Amino acid sequence: MRILGIDPGIATVGFGVVDANRGVFSEVTHGVITTPAKVPLTRRLDSIYCDLTTLVSDLKPDSVAIEELFFAANVKTGISVAQGRGVILLACFRAGIPAYEYTPLQVKQSVAGYGLAEKRQVQEMVKRLLNLERIPRPDDAADALAIALCHARAATSLMFNEESV
Amino acid sequence: MRILGIDPGIATVGFGVVDANRGVFSEVTHGVITTPAKVPLTRRLDSIYCDLTTLVSDLKPDSVAIEELFFAANVKTGISVAQGRGVILLACFRAGIPAYEYTPLQVKQSVAGYGLAEKRQVQEMVKRLLNLERIPRPDDAADALAIALCHARAATSLMFNEESV
Repeated sequence: MRILGIDPGIATVGFGVVDANRGVFSEVTHGVITTPAKVPLTRRLDSIYCDLTTLVSDLKPDSVAIEELFFAANVKTGISVAQGRGVILLACFRAGIPAYEYTPLQVKQSVAGYGLAEKRQVQEMVKRLLNLERIPRPDDAADALAIALCHARAATSLMFNEESV
Repeated sequence: MRILGIDPGIATVGFGVVDANRGVFSEVTHGVITTPAKVPLTRRLDSIYCDLTTLVSDLKPDSVAIEELFFAANVKTGISVAQGRGVILLACFRAGIPAYEYTPLQVKQSVAGYGLAEKRQVQEMVKRLLNLERIPRPDDAADALAIALCHARAATSLMFNEESV
């Protein structure tokens, strides 16, 4: 089973692809889609949509796992990220890939075994679970791999009863 | 000049199309795109994207005017609306129609002459400016016509220096 994890955004969208076979996880690729701040919003949304469509078409994941949004610090940034998340979900739907949502707490719980784990602890576990030489960079890509791993574990466990969004 | 005004949303997207010729405004059509709450989010986003693409293709507006978002009351609803707004902006961009944003205050100021005007006052002015027999229904469609009128006035005034988003 191949899973595309996504850390949604507008300036930076993190992605990470994981293959899960009988409880063994391996990293296929990871990276970020970026859009410059000076580019008009509609063009940035289109760029994210196109890049993600290409990614899905090239890598052929069976499912997409994406982080749920919680706005707290900055409402304006939150609106931008949610707009980006809308076109990401649209791209997945139009490619026929089911999408699953996880909260940051679920991701930390699943990957690091502790819902309040620090970012660094989660990244360390991503490195270990995927048998990587170093922590993936940048942070958004490491986060995306963590989300993919969270779904891989949920999807292969008997506890899995999530419906796609 | 033909303007498509949009009141963004996820459950209900209001739209209103206005023709503006030498300071005379006429209503072309108005209505709402709706998506049921029980349908998965990705399908709702796709439905909004498709309906809007069809609308733009049928009515051929020169520009789109869309309300800016301000979250206050309900963050969860705000996230949903922003996701909807993302796919609306994408549909406009991919159809080659420039989009312009206005705050609720700008819309009220432009249409009712007073930034803190009540909803009913704005609707009454929409009716008058478009020479309609009654206030357009539902509210989201009336709001969309107000946004279209706001852009019509901005675009035909010497004060117009807005860049599309």
